[in-house]
Amino acid sequence: MTDAPIQTIQLLAGHDRRIAGGHPWAYSNELKLDAAAKAIAPGALVHLTRIDGKPMGLATFNKNTLIAARLMSRDPAVTTIDQGFLHRRLAAALALRQRLFAEPYYRLVHSEGDGLPGFIIDRFGDVVVVQANTAGAEHLTEAMLDALEAMVQPRAIVLRNDSSYRDLEGLSRSIRLARGVLPAQIEVKEHGVRHLVEPLDGQKTGWFFDLHDARGLMARLAAGGRMLDLCCNTGAFSLAALAAGAEQALLVDRSDSSLAQASASAALNGLAARTEIRRGDLFDEADRLSHAGRQFDTVIADPPSFAKSRRDVPQALKAYRKLARQAALLTAPGGFLFIASCSHNIETEAFGTEVARGIAGAAREGRIIAAGGAGADHPVHPLLPETGYLKWQVLALD
Amino acid sequence: MTDAPIQTIQLLAGHDRRIAGGHPWAYSNELKLDAAAKAIAPGALVHLTRIDGKPMGLATFNKNTLIAARLMSRDPAVTTIDQGFLHRRLAAALALRQRLFAEPYYRLVHSEGDGLPGFIIDRFGDVVVVQANTAGAEHLTEAMLDALEAMVQPRAIVLRNDSSYRDLEGLSRSIRLARGVLPAQIEVKEHGVRHLVEPLDGQKTGWFFDLHDARGLMARLAAGGRMLDLCCNTGAFSLAALAAGAEQALLVDRSDSSLAQASASAALNGLAARTEIRRGDLFDEADRLSHAGRQFDTVIADPPSFAKSRRDVPQALKAYRKLARQAALLTAPGGFLFIASCSHNIETEAFGTEVARGIAGAAREGRIIAAGGAGADHPVHPLLPETGYLKWQVLALD
Repeated sequence: MTDAPIQTIQLLAGHDRRIAGGHPWAYSNELKLDAAAKAIAPGALVHLTRIDGKPMGLATFNKNTLIAARLMSRDPAVTTIDQGFLHRRLAAALALRQRLFAEPYYRLVHSEGDGLPGFIIDRFGDVVVVQANTAGAEHLTEAMLDALEAMVQPRAIVLRNDSSYRDLEGLSRSIRLARGVLPAQIEVKEHGVRHLVEPLDGQKTGWFFDLHDARGLMARLAAGGRMLDLCCNTGAFSLAALAAGAEQALLVDRSDSSLAQASASAALNGLAARTEIRRGDLFDEADRLSHAGRQFDTVIADPPSFAKSRRDVPQALKAYRKLARQAALLTAPGGFLFIASCSHNIETEAFGTEVARGIAGAAREGRIIAAGGAGADHPVHPLLPETGYLKWQVLALD
Repeated sequence: MTDAPIQTIQLLAGHDRRIAGGHPWAYSNELKLDAAAKAIAPGALVHLTRIDGKPMGLATFNKNTLIAARLMSRDPAVTTIDQGFLHRRLAAALALRQRLFAEPYYRLVHSEGDGLPGFIIDRFGDVVVVQANTAGAEHLTEAMLDALEAMVQPRAIVLRNDSSYRDLEGLSRSIRLARGVLPAQIEVKEHGVRHLVEPLDGQKTGWFFDLHDARGLMARLAAGGRMLDLCCNTGAFSLAALAAGAEQALLVDRSDSSLAQASASAALNGLAARTEIRRGDLFDEADRLSHAGRQFDTVIADPPSFAKSRRDVPQALKAYRKLARQAALLTAPGGFLFIASCSHNIETEAFGTEVARGIAGAAREGRIIAAGGAGADHPVHPLLPETGYLKWQVLALD
């Protein structure tokens, strides 16, 4: 990628063990940051070595951030990260998705989980959306776009570089069409429903593939009943449920643009007559429905992250408990409640504890019939379990 | 169920909070165990109250065990646990399964997860296998058999009362045909394969429904390649994989009877020519295959529990690490490894740590593409997460 010679960064004495054990990150306080190291451009490739010079692998390096070095390869035969290297990693990522998905709608690259640190790549048929969330990924972006074009021949590639992770890396934010021409309408097909996607304007890449499996399960549970879809975003849960035979869905979100998209997708699938759409705050709307004595056969509670940082965790845990309580009150006896947290700062066990407390607080009894995280197109590095940010439960309530 | 008047057991002062918060158990050291309490027959129904007499619900009681009281109902309107009560709980359990399973092969009752403490009930079409694992369940067994006959009209009900949990409850072990007549051949249909089941002789109830979903996933990943199935039991992973297009499967187990059953099921499905069956110890066979330089496109490592008690945990963690290392060595580059722990003494996070270490110890890199536990027919009480005993990961290895 870079024509400049690759420089070397040393791990401080005693700080090589975790990396030797398979971990892919070195933190800035574990590296010898002398004047030469500090002069290296953010995101450049480096040789990572022990203090005695023993090679550990090729990494991207950014002196300005806590996760200062991210290993790209431990293979001594790999001497640079070029389009060929990216092509091989992409090919492995693509092969896995093609084995598991019947249609080309999935997260194609999930950062370290696919050996491509900093890159998130979602595929909507022949439109591909790329997030470069680290300086290393920023540095490799053009090579990645070339590799993507060669491999999947997309009509368009959008660079959706507006994530808050970029701030940590000292990168500016922007969104742009990087390659090709965007078709007038971009769609995801999922569980028999066509969803309109707005990769330039929607949340994140425009779609949340991570709850694909959970939506399938809830759609089966929702057949024949009424669904309440809190924080519905573009309506993916509701439309899957309606297509699977749910009678009616009430969609609640505070974003006008998300609701407009949900409404358009409902119309596209002939489901508009069975949807009711309300703009409002999650907790306010839940309260209002409770006070009106409303109950639903399935309730979806899929809020945005309540804990964007570690500092927020105590407050966030209370919020998840409150949400579980309110959502349980809105779930009819014999009904099903889906509740999720997408914050990597909230641990699975703590989340489960708060959900259990919230349900008990609603004086309801029930059981967990399914629990999980993101699907197989969001692979997780075994030594970075905390990057498995998503956790959800489905409860059957008496 | 019992004609004798229902006696009362009091929670000691300060020990009612957990139960008030939704937890379904009282431990023996939390109860006032006076002479009258000690005279109550093991497994009898009791009114559980606070020390001030405030009712907490109806429970089964066994003075001889640590989990001395198990709540059956908090509803003040429920004055006894009779066939009608069991029928209502069974109906809810059945409705959930019928929503999620196309055919009548599933765990029908999962103890506290279905509000029926102590009962495990598996359904193989028109044959039902019941485990009564507590004195309370023992006490309710005849009423449960009546309720089952009324609800699902089985041809036969087997009482598979040989679990080690019964020892803790002071119950003897036995296996018997409790109702009806067993057909000559009992089958489970799963992922397009017919499996022969031996409810009188096999492990547990004769079948492990808990890995149903995991077997489906591994079958999709196994298509076109060779599978190694370590601790194959009756061959459920291998036969699902072969039916889905795997070329060949090597099945390893130390039980002759399990292997004979696997062999018969393979023949029944016309898959025998693509199976190789080996009797042997897990670690010995893995070593032998490694030394022979063998590798497989998918490897299943589904051992019996390594930690039957808390005391065993340190040794068990080492064993899971060793298993992960050996299994990773046997997985071809680009292949998939399934590894599971069925011990409730091993926590999910600790299991993941050991798997990651084992894989690093094999000098392999990879990613977790799926992780989970038992399926939706094994519901878990929200305040008893430890009863979600099963944890597994699927890794894609470079």
